[in-house]
Amino acid sequence: MRKWIDLNSDMGESFGNYVLGRPEEVMKLINHANVACAYHAGDPTWMRRTVEWAKKYGVTLGAHPGFPDLMGFGRRLMNITTQEAKDYVVYQAGALKAFADMVGVKLEAAKPHGAFWVWAQQNEDNSRAVLEGFRAVNPDIVMYLPALPRYPLMETAERMGFRVVKEFYPGLAYADDGNITVKRTYGVENVEEIVELVMRFALEGKTTAVSGKVIDVEADSVCVHGDVINAPEVLEALRAALSRAGIEARSALRAGEAAPRRMERASA
Amino acid sequence: MRKWIDLNSDMGESFGNYVLGRPEEVMKLINHANVACAYHAGDPTWMRRTVEWAKKYGVTLGAHPGFPDLMGFGRRLMNITTQEAKDYVVYQAGALKAFADMVGVKLEAAKPHGAFWVWAQQNEDNSRAVLEGFRAVNPDIVMYLPALPRYPLMETAERMGFRVVKEFYPGLAYADDGNITVKRTYGVENVEEIVELVMRFALEGKTTAVSGKVIDVEADSVCVHGDVINAPEVLEALRAALSRAGIEARSALRAGEAAPRRMERASA
Amino acid sequence: MRKWIDLNSDMGESFGNYVLGRPEEVMKLINHANVACAYHAGDPTWMRRTVEWAKKYGVTLGAHPGFPDLMGFGRRLMNITTQEAKDYVVYQAGALKAFADMVGVKLEAAKPHGAFWVWAQQNEDNSRAVLEGFRAVNPDIVMYLPALPRYPLMETAERMGFRVVKEFYPGLAYADDGNITVKRTYGVENVEEIVELVMRFALEGKTTAVSGKVIDVEADSVCVHGDVINAPEVLEALRAALSRAGIEARSALRAGEAAPRRMERASA
Amino acid sequence: MRKWIDLNSDMGESFGNYVLGRPEEVMKLINHANVACAYHAGDPTWMRRTVEWAKKYGVTLGAHPGFPDLMGFGRRLMNITTQEAKDYVVYQAGALKAFADMVGVKLEAAKPHGAFWVWAQQNEDNSRAVLEGFRAVNPDIVMYLPALPRYPLMETAERMGFRVVKEFYPGLAYADDGNITVKRTYGVENVEEIVELVMRFALEGKTTAVSGKVIDVEADSVCVHGDVINAPEVLEALRAALSRAGIEARSALRAGEAAPRRMERASA
Repeated sequence: MRKWIDLNSDMGESFGNYVLGRPEEVMKLINHANVACAYHAGDPTWMRRTVEWAKKYGVTLGAHPGFPDLMGFGRRLMNITTQEAKDYVVYQAGALKAFADMVGVKLEAAKPHGAFWVWAQQNEDNSRAVLEGFRAVNPDIVMYLPALPRYPLMETAERMGFRVVKEFYPGLAYADDGNITVKRTYGVENVEEIVELVMRFALEGKTTAVSGKVIDVEADSVCVHGDVINAPEVLEALRAALSRAGIEARSALRAGEAAPRRMERASA
Repeated sequence: MRKWIDLNSDMGESFGNYVLGRPEEVMKLINHANVACAYHAGDPTWMRRTVEWAKKYGVTLGAHPGFPDLMGFGRRLMNITTQEAKDYVVYQAGALKAFADMVGVKLEAAKPHGAFWVWAQQNEDNSRAVLEGFRAVNPDIVMYLPALPRYPLMETAERMGFRVVKEFYPGLAYADDGNITVKRTYGVENVEEIVELVMRFALEGKTTAVSGKVIDVEADSVCVHGDVINAPEVLEALRAALSRAGIEARSALRAGEAAPRRMERASA
Repeated sequence: MRKWIDLNSDMGESFGNYVLGRPEEVMKLINHANVACAYHAGDPTWMRRTVEWAKKYGVTLGAHPGFPDLMGFGRRLMNITTQEAKDYVVYQAGALKAFADMVGVKLEAAKPHGAFWVWAQQNEDNSRAVLEGFRAVNPDIVMYLPALPRYPLMETAERMGFRVVKEFYPGLAYADDGNITVKRTYGVENVEEIVELVMRFALEGKTTAVSGKVIDVEADSVCVHGDVINAPEVLEALRAALSRAGIEARSALRAGEAAPRRMERASA
Repeated sequence: MRKWIDLNSDMGESFGNYVLGRPEEVMKLINHANVACAYHAGDPTWMRRTVEWAKKYGVTLGAHPGFPDLMGFGRRLMNITTQEAKDYVVYQAGALKAFADMVGVKLEAAKPHGAFWVWAQQNEDNSRAVLEGFRAVNPDIVMYLPALPRYPLMETAERMGFRVVKEFYPGLAYADDGNITVKRTYGVENVEEIVELVMRFALEGKTTAVSGKVIDVEADSVCVHGDVINAPEVLEALRAALSRAGIEARSALRAGEAAPRRMERASA
């Protein structure tokens, strides 16, 4: 059994007058935040607030840049060039790093958002453009990436020497080969379902694909929706279940190692 | 007579398909660039190009953040809060710093753009918000500011211990008290007029106010329009006139001191 | 006592992934909708949905254009020109009219939003620019305007021959002279307070100023926040209270007359 | 030989401070304008100016909506839904129609811009969404479409009963089958080359594909770049050459018929 797990959420997605979910409450309950950088979501004021909360609640900080498509929340594939992709990463992650510097926390990690992630994993050139952009902002930056079997973004990150934290996505539809289809949850999450999915992953390293087949998932972090209205309740239930099982919630960036590992039960 | 003068221009104001003037040619002829940060003008790709040119041509780098008003080119006053102002500065200047870090140059200076400058100089609170934002991005940042008699932004900058490079604006309408009204030049600049204005300032430290009165201007830098179509010709004529007068064009950031000074002629 | 009252709300303010309040439920309970036109809030998809709901629930339709400032929700004064103001009105209201034409309802009314309203009422030139823009889109358009004693937008509208529906704002701070200061309500509205304010206005034509002084308010419509999360509950309580008092809720555009009037009690 | 030809250009693509080419001069020389609607290019003020010039110079008016991607000038494919496409068309074309109504000209035609055209012609569903959007704004709207052999947008338009004006693109790379690849021209156009291409098309109905093969092109309109700096010179040279050949330049919307036709020489 594993000794710890990292709970991460996409944060900083509010924009101006539009508040998504209950962000400060969520921040108290997660270990790592992927912070939107004002392209697909967020604005400078929400970025600063989010970074301040990250510091206040001891949450590690990742950049979560997206497509310049606020109207589509960065969920629509755009046919940008690799040069544009790199420029957009440097711009967004660089802006977030400035807030982190000001507030006194480190920008330690990154993950492309939504359709920008889809774009980045289309081929090695795209992957490389995005990864070079992140590295330009912080040479030691750690990538948070979905724990899928094999895909260009993960492979390129590993080939380029990035430390990678692999993520389990309890809300997504897994295919038999471990690949995922985004299943969007709006408004309210089913607490019990999420807890069951995460605990099965945490205790057994397994999840059930859409087909019904049980598959293995190796990951150190769980990506929990931070924008649904009951995200705090989901996270509290998760933390309680993890605690009962003796699994600590803490950031993978504070765990001493990033490679997926499975702790053996002492008595087993 | 002064031994050197700093020629600065507002740069990086092109946006996507829209190219303002002949930016690379301008960059070869100036000493310092105030680079737009994708709010009132510019985009990540033009920012990177501009920073790359600054490095290539030995031009020192300043951030030139503006209001989030691309449609108005940042020239329309917006009633933002001081907190928003600071957040917008950190966002924009932070993004530019990331490009500078990537390209291998320093982001050494700053100046708020257009109506954001007007906002910043309305009172001390506004001034302080903008200055704190710049300082958060670089604690040693130098302010480029119009050489006007007394106004909150200049006074607050000096009180907060900022190094300030004072600028002469040859294209502006000076009042008798040395204050300015923005006189926008579109398309084409009158080369002879600009050269005459700058040389009179450079040689005598004087300019003629709108009323006809001759006033003193103490400054180390001249802000030349970089977006007009004949900006390279203006700059070449300026450089030739300065050279004939034995005045070197170089960045005030490379001059060893920023305080306005008047070099005495050796034989005088 | 009055026989009817018009309940209006600002609608169509959701944007992309960001949903404000419970818009369809609100639409069932109001008589008139001021629909955002994708500048300060809203987008084409939310505009169409909002117009479709207006048709479905028999709600009359007004354009509610704002400043091009999504990040500030149109609440920050911008120093635009009168020509720009007129152009922005024609653009936004014209786009909304196209949706109305498509869906088969009429765009019958208009009101500038937030800081754009503040701008419009600064002086007669501004008022005229905005009003000419609306009239260009529909020569018979009716203005919904706050029932304040005297101000340029109301006076200019009347001078130009516009029909005006005057609005009571239960959520605002009234000065002794009947002028208002915007008091923003976030998240949740106090149902009882709103009902009490509206019923006092509906039954007596009076409200209490911030100073404690009781003042007269002549209006035919009540502007109720449509974006708070309990807006449907507020509106249901209002409708119940009005019904108990024998006052019908219906659009002022369907009432046969627009001038403020006070119906005498039959038995009085 | 044909008796007339329609010269059309994409217009209204300036934005705020950014002026593309010499728009008013171009407007004097063309017969039909495809006007940008403030998504991929343009803004309300440039839209109004463009419509006013269209009226002043007797140019017929088409809507030219694009993707919401100003930074990419609408040239990057975006994976939007058919519903979004229709909503974006109604919004943009509706706004333009409001300016046309105000100025007193008719919005008679339409063409999707750049990557939005590419999206629209991907399949029949996409084509239908865009066409329904245009028809919602004007039931009699005429489509300007590239004269390619067979493709969904053209076929769907004809099936839905739209009148179609077919366009020849002198600046594009034609494949042997008559299909085109966009070849962007920046800055300056080669006048002689354009005149030669257009005259060959006008006199013989032919053009040379990239492979060297001569192919037939049936069209009534020629789409000439309106944004290059020498667009007026290109158009003047074109008009002179057409005039020498006895071919009148006039809008296809004023020609009495839209179907492509080839006038036989009287003496032939």
